[in-house]
Amino acid sequence: MTSYQYINSIHSPDDLRALKPEVLPILAQEIRSFLVEHVTKNGGHLASNLGVVEMTIAIHRVFSSPKDHIIFDVGHQSYVHKIITGRADKFDTLRQNGGLSGFTKRSESLHDPFGAGHASTSLSAALGMADADAARGSDAYTVCIVGDGAFTGGMIHEALNNVKKDRRLVIILNENEMSISPNRGRFADHLAILRASKKYHGVKNNTRAFLKKVPYIGESLVDTAKDLKQKVKNLLYQSNYFENLGLYYLGPADGNDLATVETLLRIAKDAKQSVILHLKTKKGKGYPPAEAAPDIFHAVPKNRYYHTKTPIPDPTLTYSDVFGHTLLRYMLERSDLRAITAAMTDGTGMRCIAEKKPEYLVDVGIAEEHAITYAAGLSAGGIHPVATIYSSFLQRSYDNIIHDVALQKLPMTLCIDRAGFNEGDGVTHHGIFDVAMLSELPDIQIYAPISYSCLRRVLAASFDTDGITAIRYPKGAPDTEILAHFAGYTKEDIPTKIDFSPLTDSMHVLIVTYGRIVKEAVKAEETLRVLGIPTGIILMEQLTPYSRRCEEISMYAGNHTKLILYLEEGIYNGGAGMILRDSMEPFCQKHSILQTICAIRNPFAASETGRSMAETTGIDAGSIVAAVCDLLSEHSTL
Amino acid sequence: MTSYQYINSIHSPDDLRALKPEVLPILAQEIRSFLVEHVTKNGGHLASNLGVVEMTIAIHRVFSSPKDHIIFDVGHQSYVHKIITGRADKFDTLRQNGGLSGFTKRSESLHDPFGAGHASTSLSAALGMADADAARGSDAYTVCIVGDGAFTGGMIHEALNNVKKDRRLVIILNENEMSISPNRGRFADHLAILRASKKYHGVKNNTRAFLKKVPYIGESLVDTAKDLKQKVKNLLYQSNYFENLGLYYLGPADGNDLATVETLLRIAKDAKQSVILHLKTKKGKGYPPAEAAPDIFHAVPKNRYYHTKTPIPDPTLTYSDVFGHTLLRYMLERSDLRAITAAMTDGTGMRCIAEKKPEYLVDVGIAEEHAITYAAGLSAGGIHPVATIYSSFLQRSYDNIIHDVALQKLPMTLCIDRAGFNEGDGVTHHGIFDVAMLSELPDIQIYAPISYSCLRRVLAASFDTDGITAIRYPKGAPDTEILAHFAGYTKEDIPTKIDFSPLTDSMHVLIVTYGRIVKEAVKAEETLRVLGIPTGIILMEQLTPYSRRCEEISMYAGNHTKLILYLEEGIYNGGAGMILRDSMEPFCQKHSILQTICAIRNPFAASETGRSMAETTGIDAGSIVAAVCDLLSEHSTL
Repeated sequence: MTSYQYINSIHSPDDLRALKPEVLPILAQEIRSFLVEHVTKNGGHLASNLGVVEMTIAIHRVFSSPKDHIIFDVGHQSYVHKIITGRADKFDTLRQNGGLSGFTKRSESLHDPFGAGHASTSLSAALGMADADAARGSDAYTVCIVGDGAFTGGMIHEALNNVKKDRRLVIILNENEMSISPNRGRFADHLAILRASKKYHGVKNNTRAFLKKVPYIGESLVDTAKDLKQKVKNLLYQSNYFENLGLYYLGPADGNDLATVETLLRIAKDAKQSVILHLKTKKGKGYPPAEAAPDIFHAVPKNRYYHTKTPIPDPTLTYSDVFGHTLLRYMLERSDLRAITAAMTDGTGMRCIAEKKPEYLVDVGIAEEHAITYAAGLSAGGIHPVATIYSSFLQRSYDNIIHDVALQKLPMTLCIDRAGFNEGDGVTHHGIFDVAMLSELPDIQIYAPISYSCLRRVLAASFDTDGITAIRYPKGAPDTEILAHFAGYTKEDIPTKIDFSPLTDSMHVLIVTYGRIVKEAVKAEETLRVLGIPTGIILMEQLTPYSRRCEEISMYAGNHTKLILYLEEGIYNGGAGMILRDSMEPFCQKHSILQTICAIRNPFAASETGRSMAETTGIDAGSIVAAVCDLLSEHSTL
Repeated sequence: MTSYQYINSIHSPDDLRALKPEVLPILAQEIRSFLVEHVTKNGGHLASNLGVVEMTIAIHRVFSSPKDHIIFDVGHQSYVHKIITGRADKFDTLRQNGGLSGFTKRSESLHDPFGAGHASTSLSAALGMADADAARGSDAYTVCIVGDGAFTGGMIHEALNNVKKDRRLVIILNENEMSISPNRGRFADHLAILRASKKYHGVKNNTRAFLKKVPYIGESLVDTAKDLKQKVKNLLYQSNYFENLGLYYLGPADGNDLATVETLLRIAKDAKQSVILHLKTKKGKGYPPAEAAPDIFHAVPKNRYYHTKTPIPDPTLTYSDVFGHTLLRYMLERSDLRAITAAMTDGTGMRCIAEKKPEYLVDVGIAEEHAITYAAGLSAGGIHPVATIYSSFLQRSYDNIIHDVALQKLPMTLCIDRAGFNEGDGVTHHGIFDVAMLSELPDIQIYAPISYSCLRRVLAASFDTDGITAIRYPKGAPDTEILAHFAGYTKEDIPTKIDFSPLTDSMHVLIVTYGRIVKEAVKAEETLRVLGIPTGIILMEQLTPYSRRCEEISMYAGNHTKLILYLEEGIYNGGAGMILRDSMEPFCQKHSILQTICAIRNPFAASETGRSMAETTGIDAGSIVAAVCDLLSEHSTL
């Protein structure tokens, strides 16, 4: 930390406000170096944070956190805010288990009044906090920073429709022309028109009246024309999305110009009414590689770009890659397939489709609800949709899946990426609810391929299957070390059932599991073997129909079976383990077989401490062994 | 049906198109009489359907369903469409079990290409169908009818952002200034301004160029002024929400003027690009009581207004009423409470709050996502929010409840109205997922009061309770007949556990249940008693913590208990029954007690046939008795 003179002197926003204005550009430069250093090392969101350095400094100079509430949409662009609010010394732990969160988090700091991780929630929360202040007679301000990408999400519009004019609320539209993939759609087009208009070169006319009064801008910028032409221009200028909603709009202005931003924020503050301040910032600002490729530097992996200008390419093939390439292969052969992504073309492995078959890929923006119902519309129209959404974001589509797809029995392929824990992104991004959520639906097919061959096979079959085929897989690649244990099977070709230690009717324990958490089952088996408890593992690549899985499990559960343990990297209540246990009950009752479940009891407990996420949620090998030993000894069946 | 000359002659849209234009006003009049007759008799949505008579006739004259796709948002204003598409003779069964759905439904007619029941989904589906047509080279049109109320929902904006210009898509904005409660918010204000501008009296300028060519409107309406003043006006006119999104906008125009609507639809059709047609209709049009009070006539109860101008007031107190009045009572005492509704002030029983404490009630529009996150913001700001949402609509808030409330451990009261089956509204409105959905969350408190005293007590306690308190109750009032069985307890005061036939350790069967479905347990007990199987009923008014419920159940399960049956008017997988069965397993294993569950295996099976919903989903008394007898005889324990 020694090289960061000004950062080291800042332990709270008060320290920032004590700095002389002339050193702020140096501080901004320091912050950029600090961000590049730490984020390229630990991984995290880089380009968006580089873009908001001046804006964040200005916010903390004009407003008084934590009395005033500063809310970042998604929260991934809050790193500068974290530095200013006394968390610089924790950046070595950024996005590490138990370390500094990559998002805002209430439990981390008083300066994070509302946490996030999913997009488009900030304005709703901000309206709530502003109304709470009004109700309690507080004169605090609420500042809400929303990227233009978040405007592709419906919640922002639900909130915009509810903005009260008489609140101390400053909504900053941070326009950087990117959400994660470059921003598309009607709203983005409108912003481009606003930007291209003359207004952007200065600030808009009704803003100028204010600006006349302040030293930063001066008289020179202010037009005095009062003729009809000017009135025409005023009318035109008043004609934007926000003003049509009756909101007081300032901008657009250069969000990387500290003086301008600070001036506009003071105007917004003095207005003592709800204000929309439209700032244009440059994603990746000040770091040439990120300026040149802001999408690549949106989120950088750990160490890939650390102290290097020529990052080593990562040749690892991932589930996402295999999905994207397989889908592309079929799209080249048949015309009735369409892929849908919610702003995650790269993350879901569909860059190849964007390049080779762009007209077959629809990026709807950060709009998971629309994504599913739009896909349902395609399906009703005879086109087979392949919607690919991260597990934790799919929670937003719960009603759409029920109401628009399942109820209408429409065919759809639903690929669920980032299933299971997602270490760096943490608790808001864990994909642990999808199996419970989808298992409530009748006739759904749920797959959890652990091999690329299974993923390819299931995906291809889904195109001609009725109803919903859900295919879930985690970030990254299969664990080759684990796969190597399974003699006779290559990484490419693992069958539905695995006889890890060959399944015979002398097995005392059966572990039934799916997905990559099988790794913990394999470790547990080793220990149990040493303890003299012969254990078999049943790995399911297909979860539903659960009745069929029960029949299969029953075939393996012989006379010597004392215990069946269901292991799941997913939520306990309503999960696959609970459903299987319920279905297996008559069989187990008849054969005096005990049953137990290792699954996630508290979805928010993971990643809160330094221990592994599997450990903290009780689904690691140690927990399995303990559960088995406890139960067997309790029932004295050994 | 004899009195409806023209309706009786229409069996498909072809028959409508064969009618001479001069009889259409008579047809419109017939349709209005027909609607008033049938809807006041069977119950259903009245005012909105009366408003769209001319619009729907015009749509079917200009477009060719089912080749062209006609999609109604929510679908509750599709009655006229149902009449024209050959379903008039089924109106006697409207909203009856197994009868005509009150919404659009794919399985009901080829003319319903996409079903609905929840708001704001139509445009997403329409974009999908239009893209599917484009992909398949079809020249079919997609017509999407969206009420202005649906624009308070975010999904419409997600979809608007994705409208492609080069589609054969006609989006009709049906502005009737009402969603269910009168429409509020920024968007409604903007529409009011558009309406108030001169445009509305004719049609807007760039529309006039088209109109010049068509006979209906004629030259007289078209301005020829070409001076600057006119240009100013053009600029102003071009300045609306839709045009800012780059969409081709027509209107506003009188949607109850058949000739105007038909003309504009033909213009929109000829445009062969995506068009937004803004029509203003009068909710309740042609039926004076509904014109005067469109909110009361939005949905009318069965028989209340049938053949009468002075409806008999319904004095029945409902759960919703008790909730609203109780909350109001506390709001009069303390200033830290706020109620949030998503366009359901009346439905949720909060009219009294709107009248007595309007500043404490926030109607956010049909925006269930925003509702919850806004409430979370209030909570973070120190105000206790009471969000009240119908069970089936709460599915939209799944991610918000997880990500914004539970994860952040924010206090909130979540009142879930319309829990369980909702007969008239049918399958899209059944409130049967909420318990499974919420049970995934740690530390949540879930209550299912079956008495008003419990509802009052739990609601009051929730205001000072950490975390989420969820309180679920059905439409209507407690079943006094059932309650009368419970000697010693009044309707007002039922304790958590009921010893219907006094619970002793000679009970062979225990039925564990919650909510109004206890009625089926009571009936089953009677039969089982006759069969010589002594049965006790445990009625839970509090579901979580489930571990506590297990302890209590264990206290009642004596040595004579052979079977515990969990009965639930909710989804099987992940429901309370499954969770309790899982938790009770060690105890039941030890005491050789069988367990089974009667819950809803197929959430979409109810209301598909003439049998009762409980019967079709296997949760009626007969199913309970059968399950008990089968299991006991199978295990020969009798």
